[in-house]
Amino acid sequence: MHLGHMIPFMFCQYLQEVFDCPLVIQLTDDEKFLFKPNLKLEECIRFSRQNAKDIIACGFNPEKTFIFSNLLHVGGAFYQNVVRISRCITYSQSKSTFGFNDSDNVGKSHFVSIQAAPSFSNTFPAIFGDRSDIPCLIPCAIDQDPYFRLTRDVAHKLKYPKPALIHAKFFPALQGPGTKMSASVDSSAIFMNDTAAQIKNKINRHAFSGGGASLELHQKHGGKPEEDIPFQYLSFILDDDEEVGEIEKNYRAGTLSTGDLKKRCIEVLQKFVGDFQKRKAAITDEVLDQYMTPRSMGIDLSAK
Amino acid sequence: MHLGHMIPFMFCQYLQEVFDCPLVIQLTDDEKFLFKPNLKLEECIRFSRQNAKDIIACGFNPEKTFIFSNLLHVGGAFYQNVVRISRCITYSQSKSTFGFNDSDNVGKSHFVSIQAAPSFSNTFPAIFGDRSDIPCLIPCAIDQDPYFRLTRDVAHKLKYPKPALIHAKFFPALQGPGTKMSASVDSSAIFMNDTAAQIKNKINRHAFSGGGASLELHQKHGGKPEEDIPFQYLSFILDDDEEVGEIEKNYRAGTLSTGDLKKRCIEVLQKFVGDFQKRKAAITDEVLDQYMTPRSMGIDLSAK
Repeated sequence: MHLGHMIPFMFCQYLQEVFDCPLVIQLTDDEKFLFKPNLKLEECIRFSRQNAKDIIACGFNPEKTFIFSNLLHVGGAFYQNVVRISRCITYSQSKSTFGFNDSDNVGKSHFVSIQAAPSFSNTFPAIFGDRSDIPCLIPCAIDQDPYFRLTRDVAHKLKYPKPALIHAKFFPALQGPGTKMSASVDSSAIFMNDTAAQIKNKINRHAFSGGGASLELHQKHGGKPEEDIPFQYLSFILDDDEEVGEIEKNYRAGTLSTGDLKKRCIEVLQKFVGDFQKRKAAITDEVLDQYMTPRSMGIDLSAK
Repeated sequence: MHLGHMIPFMFCQYLQEVFDCPLVIQLTDDEKFLFKPNLKLEECIRFSRQNAKDIIACGFNPEKTFIFSNLLHVGGAFYQNVVRISRCITYSQSKSTFGFNDSDNVGKSHFVSIQAAPSFSNTFPAIFGDRSDIPCLIPCAIDQDPYFRLTRDVAHKLKYPKPALIHAKFFPALQGPGTKMSASVDSSAIFMNDTAAQIKNKINRHAFSGGGASLELHQKHGGKPEEDIPFQYLSFILDDDEEVGEIEKNYRAGTLSTGDLKKRCIEVLQKFVGDFQKRKAAITDEVLDQYMTPRSMGIDLSAK
């Protein structure tokens, strides 16, 4: 897991805190299995549990967060919604939305129904009883959008509320804007198990800078925060918008040097990753099981 | 439910008695829902429970019979096998086997994976633990054969034993060989809730006869048992093969009259349907729940 994986979850965690609402997190291990012919099913389930620990370490409310593996959890009311959704989506729609062809396995074109089901509250009777009218907000990466466009069409047919979407901004790799962190390229990403020294080294050595070519030029013409990776990371992670605004202004004016900007970025990242590691170390299998068990979240189901 | 529905279950019941083995009966209410756009899901589940009562009335061993509705039961190990199977079947295979087109919903082409899963013993951990090597015999009507042909291909890929199939012989309508009982045409079928008088009336008035045009001609040329519906029904239902042989011989020789043959058929059907009705009347919701609950069947799972 690297920063690019975790930032969307951090955003979810923020939303949950602000709205104080139940959150369900679907781990699509069945999708992984269907799309990767060499993976074993047992491995996919094992990965889910590992990923769940990383997710929990983002600080989700244990009383109101349900994390589930599709392979372990699909069934009952969930399966019934899957079948309802399947009846509303043609092969042709699934094929053209996701780019399948007839040689793809039948699980792939059907998978959209599985991914769509958690958008509807009656998929989770332990949390929402048989209420099907509780609306849903889905924070997701832009590549997941096609699933939820189909879901919104289906919602209308099933007389369920359409899920609302909020798309996460793209989190760039160290190499600069428009690049993408890769789990298999160490120098592209800050990993959630990197040490403080590794983080410092990666930012100093690999983080693409938007600063001037020399200190003189930087002071004269200023830097470009929109191209500067340390600044980008700060803008994602630093809570204090005022400080981010100050940094941007000073960097653009050339009064804040690339070195000082990197220094602040390193501090913030070290704290962010360090706090994550501390929280993760505290997650036992019992804690994990608690998050992964369907259960009441104390919602007042009689309220409109 | 009419005789044409029940005869295959009677055959299953016979096999279970002979082999003294666990039997799982899959009620494909999800299929019904996917293929009939006007049905509600709740109705499909309700129909399943009604059908299960008829099935139980065939006399299945309560200790060793598990009847389940897909809509209620798919999940866990079952869903995991569904996903394994889905990965092995291409859309193209499903489409050409069942005759779908791209405007059909994604549930239809995927459904084969649901129907296939009960062929494999680890789909039912309550009965077979995690054993995946216990072979399966599937008595089925010939129209279900395409599902299990695909299943046999998949079994090989998953290293599960291939299910064996035994095809039930076609049970004709009253109108003669090659016709089919219809639930919506009263005079075509003996229904499982027909009274003794209705049965008598239907056989006497509607059952196609293979006898001579007159008693004289019948005695001279004999009858044709292979075209005679009362004889056909007796050959399905009468346990005593010797008696069936006698009847066939005498009818063909013309020494047994159509009237007497019909009389014997009526007696046998009245008893068959009457016994069924008595058994069915004794089936409470508690009995139904017992059959529909996943549970151990006392199989020795350490045995090879």
